[in-house]
Order: sequence, then C-alpha cells, then structure tokens
Amino acid sequence: MIRIAIVGMGLIGTSLGMALRTANERESPLGKITVVGFDPDRRRTGEARGRLAIDQESNSLAEAVRDANLIIVAVPVQAIQEIFRSLATLASPGAVVTDVASTKSFVMDWARDLLPTTIDFIGGHPMAGREQSGPAAADPNLFRNALYCLCPSTNASEQSIAIVEALVQQIGAKVYYVDSVEHDAYVAAVSHLPFLLSAGLVEVTSRSPGWREMSPLAATGFRDISRLASGDPEMHRDICLTNVPALTRWINDTVSYLLDVREWLEQGREAEILEMFRHAQEVREEWLESKPHMRPGESDFENLSSTQIERPSLFGRRNRPPSDRDRRR
Amino acid sequence: MIRIAIVGMGLIGTSLGMALRTANERESPLGKITVVGFDPDRRRTGEARGRLAIDQESNSLAEAVRDANLIIVAVPVQAIQEIFRSLATLASPGAVVTDVASTKSFVMDWARDLLPTTIDFIGGHPMAGREQSGPAAADPNLFRNALYCLCPSTNASEQSIAIVEALVQQIGAKVYYVDSVEHDAYVAAVSHLPFLLSAGLVEVTSRSPGWREMSPLAATGFRDISRLASGDPEMHRDICLTNVPALTRWINDTVSYLLDVREWLEQGREAEILEMFRHAQEVREEWLESKPHMRPGESDFENLSSTQIERPSLFGRRNRPPSDRDRRR
Repeated sequence: MIRIAIVGMGLIGTSLGMALRTANERESPLGKITVVGFDPDRRRTGEARGRLAIDQESNSLAEAVRDANLIIVAVPVQAIQEIFRSLATLASPGAVVTDVASTKSFVMDWARDLLPTTIDFIGGHPMAGREQSGPAAADPNLFRNALYCLCPSTNASEQSIAIVEALVQQIGAKVYYVDSVEHDAYVAAVSHLPFLLSAGLVEVTSRSPGWREMSPLAATGFRDISRLASGDPEMHRDICLTNVPALTRWINDTVSYLLDVREWLEQGREAEILEMFRHAQEVREEWLESKPHMRPGESDFENLSSTQIERPSLFGRRNRPPSDRDRRR
Repeated sequence: MIRIAIVGMGLIGTSLGMALRTANERESPLGKITVVGFDPDRRRTGEARGRLAIDQESNSLAEAVRDANLIIVAVPVQAIQEIFRSLATLASPGAVVTDVASTKSFVMDWARDLLPTTIDFIGGHPMAGREQSGPAAADPNLFRNALYCLCPSTNASEQSIAIVEALVQQIGAKVYYVDSVEHDAYVAAVSHLPFLLSAGLVEVTSRSPGWREMSPLAATGFRDISRLASGDPEMHRDICLTNVPALTRWINDTVSYLLDVREWLEQGREAEILEMFRHAQEVREEWLESKPHMRPGESDFENLSSTQIERPSLFGRRNRPPSDRDRRR
C-alpha cells in the first residue's frame, strides 16, 4: 500500500498516473497504489482525473503531499526549486521525492540545498516524450521499454531507491543509473541538440523572404526533421537554461561540422562529403539495430526482451570516483 | 498509346513505373502505356520487373530508348550528363525527355548543351522520397498528392509539356512550375538543409568520445531528427555538389542561428529563447495546417482535395522576366 502524489498534471505527470493505475496491483512491487494529483491549474487536474490518471484530486500542494509516501514532481525544470521549498515544510518525514526533469545537475543541487535530510531525493528522467504537451496528450504506454535515468542523492537510503526503482518497473521502463553531470552532457547531445536543430530548421527557413514560396515544397523530410519544433516552448527554454555548458559544447561542434561541410562544398571535395554521409548512415543503422523497438514502423515495444538494457556497461567500464553529489550502485 | 522508357531502376524510377502501371488506362490522358526499364545493374531491372514496375526489360540504353515517346531519366544527378550525351544519338527525334533529379540548374544546362533541338526536355522533380533506396523500397503511392516540380526548357513545345503534365497527373501528383534557379534555392532550404542537419546530428554526437555511453539514451527525438541520415550517401553527395551556392547560404544562416542561441544561453536571455521556440512552434503548426495530408498520423493522402495546390501563387505574384533557360506558363 503506497500513496503517490503527482505534482504537475502535464504530459509526463498524467502519463505516469495512467501507467501506474493501469498496472496490475497483484504484480506490483509497490502493492496497492493510491495516486493523488495536484496542478495549480484545476482544469488540468480535472482532465487528468477524467483520463483515469489519478484517484483523487487535491486543491493544494499541501493536501496532495501531506500523507504521500512517494512524491513525483512533474513540473517544468524552472518551477522545481519553488516546489522543493514548499515540500521542505509540507512533506512528511520519510517521504521519498523524485522528479522527471530533462536536466539533472541543477535539480540535484536544489534538492541538496532545500530538502531536509528526513526526505530522500532520487532524481529521475524518463527518456520518453512527445511533441504534444498537456494531459490530453498523455499515454499510459509512453514509458514502455524506455530507459529511465535515476540519480540518487548521496544521502538516499537503499529502501528509498528501491521504491523509485519499483516505480520505474511498474510503468514498464528500464532503470539507468547515471551521474547527474554525465546525464546532462549526454542528453544535451541526444535529446536537446535534436530539438535545437529542429527549431533551427524552422527558424532559418521561415525567417527568409522566400518562405511563402518555398513552404509548399516542404515535404516529409522537412516534416520529420522539424517535428521537435512543435514541442512546448517553455519546456525547451527551461531545458536550455539549465544545461548551458553541455549545450554550448554541442552547438560548437555543430558549427564546426557545418563549416567543414561548407568548405568541402566550396572546394568540391567529393570524397570527404561521401565519406561523411556514409559514416552517418552506418552509425544510424548500428544505433537502430541496438534499439529494435525504435525502428520506424516496428514499434513493437512489447516484444523487446526485458534483459536487453538492464544495467548499462557505463558503470563497469569507468574508473572515476563517484561525484560529490551522486553515487553509483 | 505511349511507350515510356525509364532509365534507372532505383527508388524513384521503380516507383514511377509501378505508379504508371497501376493507373487505370481508360482514365489515362496518356492512353495505353508500355513501360520499358533499363538499369546498368541487371539485378535491379529484374527486381523492378518482379515488382511489376515495367512491361519490358532492356539490355541496353539504346534498346530501351529506341522507340520511346517519353524518356524518364531516373539516375543520380551526377550520372545525368553522361546519359544525355548518349540520348543525343540514341533517342528518336520528337521524343520527350524528363528527369527526376533533386537539383535542376545543372540539369537544365546539360540538357541545353547536350540534347539536340529535335528532343524536348522538361526538367522534373517529384517532392517525395524515403530514406530507403533501390527498387525494393519502391512504392506506387509514393507520389500521391506530392508536388511535382516542372522546369520546361525554353524550346519545349506545348505538346511535350502536356505529355509530362499527363505523367504527373497519372501518378497522382500535382504540377508545380518553377524556375530552375528558384527551385534549387527553395529545395536547398526545405529538403537539402534538413538532410545536412540530420546527418550532422549523427556526425556530431557519434564522433564524440561519449557516444557509446550516450547512445542508449537516444530516443524517439534522436531517431526522427536523424532519419534522413539513413538516406543514400551518393545521392546526398550529388545533391550537395550540384547546389553549392544555395546550400552555402542556408549553412551560413544556420551557423548564425546557432551562434545567436549560444549567446542567449551564455547571457541567460530567457525572453529571446522563449520567443524563438514559440515562433518555431507557431510556424510549424501553420505549415502543417497548410498541408493536411502531412500531419503525422493522418497520412490520408487520398482525401486531400485535388484543387488545393494546383497552381501556386508564385507565378501570379512575381513580375520578373522569365530566365533565359526556363519559361513560365
């Protein structure tokens, strides 16, 4: 029997609630689950209730978290700090707190600075999403076979970590332990750079005088590469502003790539251009092969063996000492 | 009764054959169609035959084009010049020649310089494709409701133009007349820049030392933004090398965008970052609304009204004189 409070009824908060409530209670390591939902926007809480994402609506943060064993903070990154300040007085001693933000270093710092030692914090980031936002876009299968990054804080107990692990298991995702600084560097490359390039494609083309004439010619290639430009602007802004050093590095690398290509074009360097496209094609093919459920048109999430990516080699291969904030298990 | 030769049994050549042969002959403005196919690689011709894309296989270019009324050159851009040299002696006087290349300025020049005046050339570019290549990836519905750019050469007769228009109609696409220089500038933005960014995402991330650790975290966003990196490297190379000035302009604009974003990040300029993401989201939404069959998950090509994009406003709005190579109708 566990009481879970979800703070923030957006795409991820509502999807988490739906995934938790559709799971089979008998098979759940968490036992019987009661999900309480809160969002400052009451319409969103109502919509989440209507979509069966929560058992109870709360009128206030205080009411939502009062008796909760597990508190999932599912608000935009920049709103997390304020929520942590409130939780410091509102949450019960012994409660476990986790979040779902796309960047982790700032969040880990805020948790360390703002949450009392009686509350264990385990940073979380499910590697799943869609370009639509809000409770209407929620999907109980959003997390199926997705990796779910966890960054336990230094003082978190084994028991608290086990609770968040069980949450991840319950929604069909796979635990991936990662240091928060590494997390931010990695997702800057594979998740944030993609949305910057996606928005960039739209910005660069649509701000040109020829946009009205050229936009009818844009086809499926433009549609797919620009997909992430339809994502929530506030979320994108918050992610950018809490991941500046990592993003700057990938922006610099992308500028270098573009300048290389420009030089090859100007000098007619056929071999370099061909080699670049061949390498990119080959790497993407290898990556798709390592992610069988990712192959377009084969979204057969259910059939993916659950043993495939349980414990990444990340922790076996490295010899660095754990960072001051996070620990490896 | 028309005899059509398709030279090059790749994705586009084979798809064209399939689309032509599955069309209803009674409703065809071309009358009864015989499709002859040729590819230097005999296996590809055989595969195209097996997929019912052609009525007859030819053993040589000469045999394929000898009695053809319409010759569709569906080879990579950089192979076109050589084919035109051969067609100059092999094609019958009165034959109409068209191509399907992604860039048009070079092709128009080659046609003017290499084809005799007894052969009419109408440059063509169907705005459709997939990341897979070869006859195995061909699809008779590939062109349904896609725009099909046409660039008639200066000396092409009305009758020759009507034949290529009928071809476009037959495969379910929509004619879009455009000057070859404008064409190349536009597609550089909406079609070639996307594949450069897509390959760039893969190159930049996969060439970093952290790729092995970060690649498991790459999810659907990475998958979709990198999709075009799986396209045919030779085709991408040829497109780049025949569209240098236009691509250079968009590369420069993209570099400026990335440097702006980097500055905003470093200076914590929240308002500028938010405004940029809002604008990109809004523009993409408007673009999707103008292309109802493009909306992901609503690929209902059949229901799109055929009157939607018949004649673009492009030609009504401009007052420039026609270029020396192309003409407007």
